[in-house]
Amino acid sequence: MRVVVFNENHHERTRPEVRARYPDGIHGLLAPSLAALTPYDVTTATQDQDGYGERVLGADVLVWWGHLRHEEVPRDLVERLRERVLGGMGLVVLHSGIGSRLTRALLGTSCAVRWRHGDDRQLVWTVKPGHPIAAGIPQPLVIEEDEMYGEPFDIPEPDELVFVSGFTGGEVFRSGACYTRGAGRVFLFSPGDQECPVYHLPEVRQVIANAVWWAAPAAPVGPPPRNEQAPVGWWR
Amino acid sequence: MRVVVFNENHHERTRPEVRARYPDGIHGLLAPSLAALTPYDVTTATQDQDGYGERVLGADVLVWWGHLRHEEVPRDLVERLRERVLGGMGLVVLHSGIGSRLTRALLGTSCAVRWRHGDDRQLVWTVKPGHPIAAGIPQPLVIEEDEMYGEPFDIPEPDELVFVSGFTGGEVFRSGACYTRGAGRVFLFSPGDQECPVYHLPEVRQVIANAVWWAAPAAPVGPPPRNEQAPVGWWR
Amino acid sequence: MRVVVFNENHHERTRPEVRARYPDGIHGLLAPSLAALTPYDVTTATQDQDGYGERVLGADVLVWWGHLRHEEVPRDLVERLRERVLGGMGLVVLHSGIGSRLTRALLGTSCAVRWRHGDDRQLVWTVKPGHPIAAGIPQPLVIEEDEMYGEPFDIPEPDELVFVSGFTGGEVFRSGACYTRGAGRVFLFSPGDQECPVYHLPEVRQVIANAVWWAAPAAPVGPPPRNEQAPVGWWR
Amino acid sequence: MRVVVFNENHHERTRPEVRARYPDGIHGLLAPSLAALTPYDVTTATQDQDGYGERVLGADVLVWWGHLRHEEVPRDLVERLRERVLGGMGLVVLHSGIGSRLTRALLGTSCAVRWRHGDDRQLVWTVKPGHPIAAGIPQPLVIEEDEMYGEPFDIPEPDELVFVSGFTGGEVFRSGACYTRGAGRVFLFSPGDQECPVYHLPEVRQVIANAVWWAAPAAPVGPPPRNEQAPVGWWR
Repeated sequence: MRVVVFNENHHERTRPEVRARYPDGIHGLLAPSLAALTPYDVTTATQDQDGYGERVLGADVLVWWGHLRHEEVPRDLVERLRERVLGGMGLVVLHSGIGSRLTRALLGTSCAVRWRHGDDRQLVWTVKPGHPIAAGIPQPLVIEEDEMYGEPFDIPEPDELVFVSGFTGGEVFRSGACYTRGAGRVFLFSPGDQECPVYHLPEVRQVIANAVWWAAPAAPVGPPPRNEQAPVGWWR
Repeated sequence: MRVVVFNENHHERTRPEVRARYPDGIHGLLAPSLAALTPYDVTTATQDQDGYGERVLGADVLVWWGHLRHEEVPRDLVERLRERVLGGMGLVVLHSGIGSRLTRALLGTSCAVRWRHGDDRQLVWTVKPGHPIAAGIPQPLVIEEDEMYGEPFDIPEPDELVFVSGFTGGEVFRSGACYTRGAGRVFLFSPGDQECPVYHLPEVRQVIANAVWWAAPAAPVGPPPRNEQAPVGWWR
Repeated sequence: MRVVVFNENHHERTRPEVRARYPDGIHGLLAPSLAALTPYDVTTATQDQDGYGERVLGADVLVWWGHLRHEEVPRDLVERLRERVLGGMGLVVLHSGIGSRLTRALLGTSCAVRWRHGDDRQLVWTVKPGHPIAAGIPQPLVIEEDEMYGEPFDIPEPDELVFVSGFTGGEVFRSGACYTRGAGRVFLFSPGDQECPVYHLPEVRQVIANAVWWAAPAAPVGPPPRNEQAPVGWWR
Repeated sequence: MRVVVFNENHHERTRPEVRARYPDGIHGLLAPSLAALTPYDVTTATQDQDGYGERVLGADVLVWWGHLRHEEVPRDLVERLRERVLGGMGLVVLHSGIGSRLTRALLGTSCAVRWRHGDDRQLVWTVKPGHPIAAGIPQPLVIEEDEMYGEPFDIPEPDELVFVSGFTGGEVFRSGACYTRGAGRVFLFSPGDQECPVYHLPEVRQVIANAVWWAAPAAPVGPPPRNEQAPVGWWR
């Protein structure tokens, strides 16, 4: 099972304070953690690398972090990734990745949110106890500092809603949502702003590891569904 | 279209401060408001009245407020009300009514919540803009003081989630949830503790009126579905 | 309320037997029927017309029939239509329109089906009695001859499943499915092959009229949701 | 993991032709099969046994077949079983068991169906490829002879719809439906009339084994959720 952690890797390269927080990039912190918390082979890909497209297309489970450079991901790559999800690839979308071309292509909505950079504490509440993505996660999961993402969040009705967050400022957010698209499973998990040390929290990394487990395909990733002609009188 | 507002009417009769808040009972405040905000005929029924069962069984849309005396509602009445919902009666469940025998019978779960009497402010956020129950409701709807109901809330995945609330204490709650059962529509709306003047807020009464509109059956309420034998060769 | 019936209008112009069946085009049969069955203003647009894009973008409810020329609908028009649905426009997708760029963009899946041109009878069963789209529709709705669309149908789990069809050949199909995207409502209705006189059946036209009613926006169609910055300390 | 196969065991004891078909009872055929197809400990319980209630209450996954004697299952046992599902017990409901008190208590609806004893062939189509319950199941699964169950089937909108069946007589049925209730998973699978040798088909037993895997709790079965008082100022 090949897990690929994709990261835009823009803030880490351009902003010293982000680099100080994530000297190896968000991907560089998450990948070893996922390798330790799952039995899977975990590699990384970043948007500033040549040929990152082939790397992400080789994933069985793709973890996606992006923010400012969504529109630079080529449309044909987005379409190929969408087809790979339909063929069974799992997708775990982190924080501002919820606004990526790929997420919008799979969900059909704008994925727009209210947001605020401030001093918000985020409490992540499990609303679906017993869901595998919530296994071992404290109730609530406390994130002392994070960007606020607030409702309304323009997504389809989730197949399963696992987490809802509350913020010091009074806002709430559906912070953990499950979808199935074709044979693929998609999980959106909203915590994790680059301005805050969210991924340094073991509980947050455990959620992501749980989500990778949950999204891992049961069978090898195949081609997307195609229209198929059925013969006349196949039954009789 | 006959709307019946059912109220346990226990606190209002036994606690002076609640009576001071709702001198005519919660039902006595809500019924005229719904009559003014909808084109329907609105009456009331209270648990302390003889024959209240027949009154609620006559409803096309039933609004339900209960708290301490859930278990005194006879099981056979609960079963007849459940069958009436399956036949098309709308049901709007308020506050602690979410733990009533009828709600549990229709949803199948415990409807258990975390709760706290405190000094919480409740902010009710619309997560599904464009839903008719949210029409004209401020974003957020501010309730200066209410009992806290918090997740995990043991309900089935809602067919549509309309409102999510945040509380000063940090908790969150799925405060507006839609279900269909048979031909009937069910809406759960959690604000409205007897200790707080929640139903004096016009916006809260507007939500309830919107929910009554939404839950009103399109056709006369009929019998519940029954097993039906299909003839052999009906088609050929 | 402006209803626009869009039709690819390819088969009618290129195949005499289809023209004989629909001398005014499928749109030319459906539009007057919808004008008679709803209180709305109903016009048409066809893919062979210059400027059809502006016509469909002016709709409050858009009815869409397409088949061979899906990929000729410009991507930017598809994107603008998707945003209009998110802003509240209703969309009723007919037959092979379920494979259109717009449908795929809104649902995220391939919308692939099994299919067969044969001699299948289609029986359309209502699985959600009491749903407004099924109001007044016979159980089952009998279509003596139609193209077979069979499962697996690659769509997200419907918000509401209203119809399931069975075919003489033994196949089944989720033939009436409801979704919400942003403030817009989307209904997929699969009967209606150009080779068969399906839209000459009053019951089929009634389903489409019911769907137009159901999908009609409650408020004027607005812009799609956008990310919005929330102020710091807005509450305190 | 303790799997208990419950069977009413009425037809097998009272009708020679059913006994000839299932000399050890339906439970006696299914239990060894599930023991062979899963790593779990599988036992049986029948309604004619004294103390069957304690046996079924000891299950981690309960498989339920019942028909004529639903109303003889004591209400308090049904309530204790419902609470056990909420605590995490998996439930796999077979054929006419969909009308049992337990199923109705968990789903809230009548679970009414159209039905016919005839000469119907049932084709079970997978509508959700990639779902674990469909793993390895032929498309379609062919049941040469079974009782017809047809729509409308009075159930809540399934969380996931896995199978839809078509019958020779023209009817269709949602024959495989998933629900979550509390921490428990529930699967309804409708094939399996006592008059037909359905459970002698290996593919049918594989579906049931897949469902037992899917419904098996990830954590030990606990008590059902209860209302819980949250402290004031727990956070500050």
